[in-house]
Order: sequence, then C-alpha cells, then structure tokens
Amino acid sequence: MKFSCTKTDLNTNLSLVSRVVPSRPTHPVLANVLVVADAEKGKISLTAFDLSLGIRTSFHALVMEEGVITLPAKLLVDIVAKLPDGEITLSYQEESEDGNATATLTSASGRFQLRAMNAEEFPALPVVENGSRVQLPMSALTEGLRGTGFAASTDETKQVLTGVHLICSHNNLEFAATDGHRLAIVETSLIDKNSETESEIEEVENFEVTIPARALRELEKMLSMAQDTESVGLNFDEGQVVFELGDQILTSRKLEGTYPDYRKLIPENFTRTTAIERKRLLNGLELVAVLADQKNNLVKFAIDNSTDEISLSVEAQDVGNAKESLPAQITGDDLAIGFNVKYFMEGLKAIPSSDIQIHLNESNQPVIITPMSGLKMTYLLMPVQLRS
Amino acid sequence: MKFSCTKTDLNTNLSLVSRVVPSRPTHPVLANVLVVADAEKGKISLTAFDLSLGIRTSFHALVMEEGVITLPAKLLVDIVAKLPDGEITLSYQEESEDGNATATLTSASGRFQLRAMNAEEFPALPVVENGSRVQLPMSALTEGLRGTGFAASTDETKQVLTGVHLICSHNNLEFAATDGHRLAIVETSLIDKNSETESEIEEVENFEVTIPARALRELEKMLSMAQDTESVGLNFDEGQVVFELGDQILTSRKLEGTYPDYRKLIPENFTRTTAIERKRLLNGLELVAVLADQKNNLVKFAIDNSTDEISLSVEAQDVGNAKESLPAQITGDDLAIGFNVKYFMEGLKAIPSSDIQIHLNESNQPVIITPMSGLKMTYLLMPVQLRS
Repeated sequence: MKFSCTKTDLNTNLSLVSRVVPSRPTHPVLANVLVVADAEKGKISLTAFDLSLGIRTSFHALVMEEGVITLPAKLLVDIVAKLPDGEITLSYQEESEDGNATATLTSASGRFQLRAMNAEEFPALPVVENGSRVQLPMSALTEGLRGTGFAASTDETKQVLTGVHLICSHNNLEFAATDGHRLAIVETSLIDKNSETESEIEEVENFEVTIPARALRELEKMLSMAQDTESVGLNFDEGQVVFELGDQILTSRKLEGTYPDYRKLIPENFTRTTAIERKRLLNGLELVAVLADQKNNLVKFAIDNSTDEISLSVEAQDVGNAKESLPAQITGDDLAIGFNVKYFMEGLKAIPSSDIQIHLNESNQPVIITPMSGLKMTYLLMPVQLRS
Repeated sequence: MKFSCTKTDLNTNLSLVSRVVPSRPTHPVLANVLVVADAEKGKISLTAFDLSLGIRTSFHALVMEEGVITLPAKLLVDIVAKLPDGEITLSYQEESEDGNATATLTSASGRFQLRAMNAEEFPALPVVENGSRVQLPMSALTEGLRGTGFAASTDETKQVLTGVHLICSHNNLEFAATDGHRLAIVETSLIDKNSETESEIEEVENFEVTIPARALRELEKMLSMAQDTESVGLNFDEGQVVFELGDQILTSRKLEGTYPDYRKLIPENFTRTTAIERKRLLNGLELVAVLADQKNNLVKFAIDNSTDEISLSVEAQDVGNAKESLPAQITGDDLAIGFNVKYFMEGLKAIPSSDIQIHLNESNQPVIITPMSGLKMTYLLMPVQLRS
C-alpha cells in the first residue's frame, strides 16, 4: 500500500473517525483505525468501530499502490495533527523478517514508522441489506438531534432511555428523549420548506426506531461539518441503523425494548402560563445555581401575578441563600414550584428561540416549556418537592 | 460594613487573590477571603493567605460603613463572575440571634446571603519591619521570572530547588532555577535602559534570596496585569519576602538552605556549536515527542557537519520510531547525544529569540542553549545516556 495526500485531508478525516475508538478496547485491533487505499477510485477510506458504533469516511488521494492495513488510532491522530502543512505519504510493506509489520509516514521534514496490525483481524462494519431506507433532510435531523439528545439518560442501565426515539409518520419526523426526570420532543417535517414541488413528494414509509444518543452525538458532529444542503440516508433493519452522508457512513446498533408512551405525560390543559426572555431566565438560573450546586440542585421557581415577576430562589443550609427576580408576563394564580436547576438550564439552552412560554398546573404536576417561535419543541420538566 | 463597587472591580480583584486560597485549608477560615472596608480612604482590600503565600489587593469603592469580615472565597468568586455588569453592594450585619453571621450581596436583579466568618480568626499577613528594601524594574523582574521559573523543581522534598534564586550584585540582578536535570539563568540589569540619568543612579544593596517558584508564578500574573512602567518594591528579612506593586502586595516565606553553586556546572569551553531556528527545532521536537511520550521521553539529537543538518530521532520499542531532520549551521565534529525531550522543549519555549545556539562537548557532558540576541539567558541541559 502506498498513497499521498494533504496533511489537512488526513487530519480532518482521522479526527472524525478516531472519536469512536474506545479508550479501553476489548480487542487490541479496536484501538486501531482501518486504512484502505483504493487505486481505481483514487480514494482512501478510514474506519473506526467499537463493535456498537462505527464510522467510515473517505477522501481523495494519489494512490500509488492498493492495500489495506490498521494503525494505532491515537498515535496516528497525535502525529498527523502536529505535522507541518503539505503532502504526506503513507506506505506499508508486508511483514519483515523479524515479524514486525511497519507502516511509514513521510513528510517534508522527516518520517515516522509505526507498528501496524493486519486488517484481517478488524471486524467488518455491519451492513443493512434487506432493511428499510429513507432520505432525511439535513435540517430536520440537525434540529431534532440538537433539541433532544441532551435529555437522554447517560446511565447505561437505563437501556432504552439512553437513546433518542424517532417516529416517522405521514412525512412528519418526531424526535424524543427522556431520562425519567425530563422529556424533550422536537417535531420536524420531511418536506423541504423551500421546495416548490411539494405535491410531487412521495410519502416516506412510516417507522419507529430508538438510536443510542452517543451515536447521534457523533452524527451531529458529522452533520455540522457537512454542507447543510445535503440530505442523509437512513437504513435500518431489526438490529442496526446506518446513516449515509456523502462519503461518510455511521453505523450503530439499535436500542431494543419498547420506548415509553411519552405523549401521555403531557398535560392537555394548564391553569397558569408565563412568557419570559429565555436568555435572561437562563442567566438568573446560572447565578442561583452556584448555591444550588452546594446542596441538592433545588431551585424554587415562583410566579407572582400582581407584580408580573418570577423569582428564582435557593436555600443552601450552612452556606447561604440567593434570590433573583425577573420580569415576565403571567396569567393564572401565584405559584411556587421546585425544579432541579441543571435540568431546567439544559432545557433552556437547547431551545432556539429568544422568548419562551412556561405552562404550569400545580406544584406537583409536570411543567411544559415551549419556544415562542421557530422550532416545534416541547420540554417537559418534572417538579421536585420543596421543603416545607 | 457596607460598600458599593462595580462588578468588574470586585471580580478582577477577587480572581487575583482567590488563586492563593488552598483547596484543602488546614483551618476553615483559610478557605475565606478577608474583606476590609476603609471609609476614610474609600477603599476595599481583599486578602487571601495559605500561611506560606499571601496576596492583598485593594480598589476604590463607595464605603457607606467601615468594617471587616471573611467570606467563602470560592463561592464568592463563582457568584461575582456570573453577576451582570453594574453596581454591586456588599453589606454585613453583626451576628443575628440564631448565631449566624450573614453577608448580603445585592445586584440589580437579586441578592445573595452568604454565611460569613469573623475576621478575628484570619491570620495576619507577615510584615517585614527591619529588613532590606530594594526597588526592581518591572521589566527585569518579568524577564527573569519568565526565563527561569519553569526550571524549578515541583517536588516539595527538593526544598531549596523548588525556588528561584535571585542574586543582586553591583546593580545586576541574576535569576536561576534548577531541578537537577536542567538549569536556567537570566541576567538582568537594575538600571533602566531608557533612563538617561544613569550616572545618578545609586547602587542597590547586594543580596541573595531563594523564593518559592509557586509564589513567583502568582507574582508573574500580577505583573502581567499591571502597567509595565511601574517598578516593584522587594522587602525581605530572615524569613519573609514582601513584593509591593502599586495597591497590591504579595508575601511569601523564603526558602531556607544554601542554593547550589550552579555557575561551576557551566563548561568554559565547547568543542561544537550549532545555530538553529528556535521555532523549527521546537516543532520538530513536539513531533517526535508523540512517540517519546510512549516510552522514556528520550530523544537522540545528532549533528552532521557534512550535511549541515541536525536530526531528532526517537525509538519506541513495540510502537515505532521517528526521525526529523532540520537545517542548521554546525561547527565541530559529528555527535549524537540523548536528551529528555520535555526538558529540551520547555527550555526552547522560554527563550525569547528567533534563533538560538547550542553549545556541546561530548555526549556525556552538559549542553548549553543560548538566545542569539536579546535577553541574556543560559539554559543548561544534562544529557541522558543513549541505549547502545
């Protein structure tokens, strides 16, 4: 194998795939990145895979000699990142007499020789052959992931709750994630708003799938680096999903199990509503969170109809207390309700609108936060009991 | 106690002193910052002290009521940093009936109440009453600290080697630091080069003192935030040094014990010299350091008189090897010598000149690195034995 490419191409593509490489691989070869040089296409592909999540990316290069090899991912990333800009040549000779297989990386100023591992040991990325395939607009996917991924559980024992649930129905694509304390829902359309040929669009097959949030965070990064005009192919069967994005693919196992029927958690009516500037509320929460951090992350959120103010207060025994007041438009009776300040802030950070509405009933019932404009997003926050 | 000031003033000054606050204080009050409001001067002073290193800073404020109190440093820093810009009022009432002393911090949008501790428990900063006093130019102090501090030992058992040694002799001020593996020396003059009244300058008293590098790192930060036209007062007696810098003071214990006679380590003659671009050598070392990191940080530095090149190479068993070559001007015979790559890089980073000279004898003798222009700095690097 032998090819030449720019430092930038190799660096960008390596950075992308190497994020998948496990820090404690179950098998040594999983600490490596698979490098395939295709002379006919003039392309190099790089693959990393942790047996659950895999990413493959490819880029153009001058391929002098075809071949396939695996190289230590972390080391290669560190070296290539520090190389001067310019052309890099990577070559590989079959095992030498002493049994060491070595790849050579040559730049203008010097060369590295790295211990390589045979590609045969590298597990194949899963493929979806007889599954379903849909094409998703980049914008819908980006909005959906950004608005929900943060609310998934990070506790691996919570199984299906560690994922984001996607439901496609009549050309609408809904994203949902919950960890049991809060729930985020984003509704998007598969029909490109800019398209004038709406009537010609075929209806996408309805489906439902739960995908690990970790895989989707990597997908989000791939989306942010790609052109925003493209669409993304989604293939899936019983066990796997495969996203196709230009020259890149991301594969992930699906999460098994029934996703909770989250729609029934959302109250139909509310007795109180407040409209408030999102950034201002977030700043106030960040301020009182300094004290809430010291104790149980509990913030008291109170609405006062007579003054049209909301107040945020925290009581941290043996440390002190804090109170911030903010102007708001309030309908309904006065109320004091407790929240986990971190969950409150995370939801506000994910909502892409300058003003929000907070819909409330009583202090022991879930609260709904929605943007005033733009994205169709619903953030449900479970209250926490205030100490009496 | 009651005063008003801007968020910026309080924030800047708190950040400066709070760095001294120990993360695990030996006494609870040392986790606090001492706040003194002086109505007559219209000034607030803030003090933090870990019993070895202390910083006091002061700034103007509208003092409504004199007083003195201590407040939890970390919490106060976090809160003030997040407050909106504008006026802040800090007040303190004597202990209430329940025995809790509370300070109140009020901003435009809300208020914090924090548990305070009595100032009587806060230890007094050491003062130097009958010691020596010299005035040092800011530029000399900055250059000296920047060029040597990094070479001091971070191993507390190395005692005097954890400090920077200052020698003042005939209006020359020399800084030195060594951890036994390398030695950095900077020679500066106490005579301001821009001054035209050189003949009028009195000779500063000769002295010798070793100051903990940790205290000097804080002093460097204070210097970098101050005007570069000022000079710094240095007071010292048997046990303490006190730096005075405008409204700020830094106190530190001195390090006891005889500082090694480092001058005798520096060879008088060299058989080989190479001149090289500093940044290029540093980049090359950073590159091969990726592999050296995997093993013992050993880099082989070889000079080749016939090609006028130096080469940097690393052999990391079971991982790979690296070699970078760089152009250089070389006098003397070819030589290969081993170095700790981290010590080599740290020295190069501290030298403020675009080209450097490396002076060598044999592969088991110390090497000297000097800037080609500007600062009078000497960096001595002990060689490491290459595996044969």
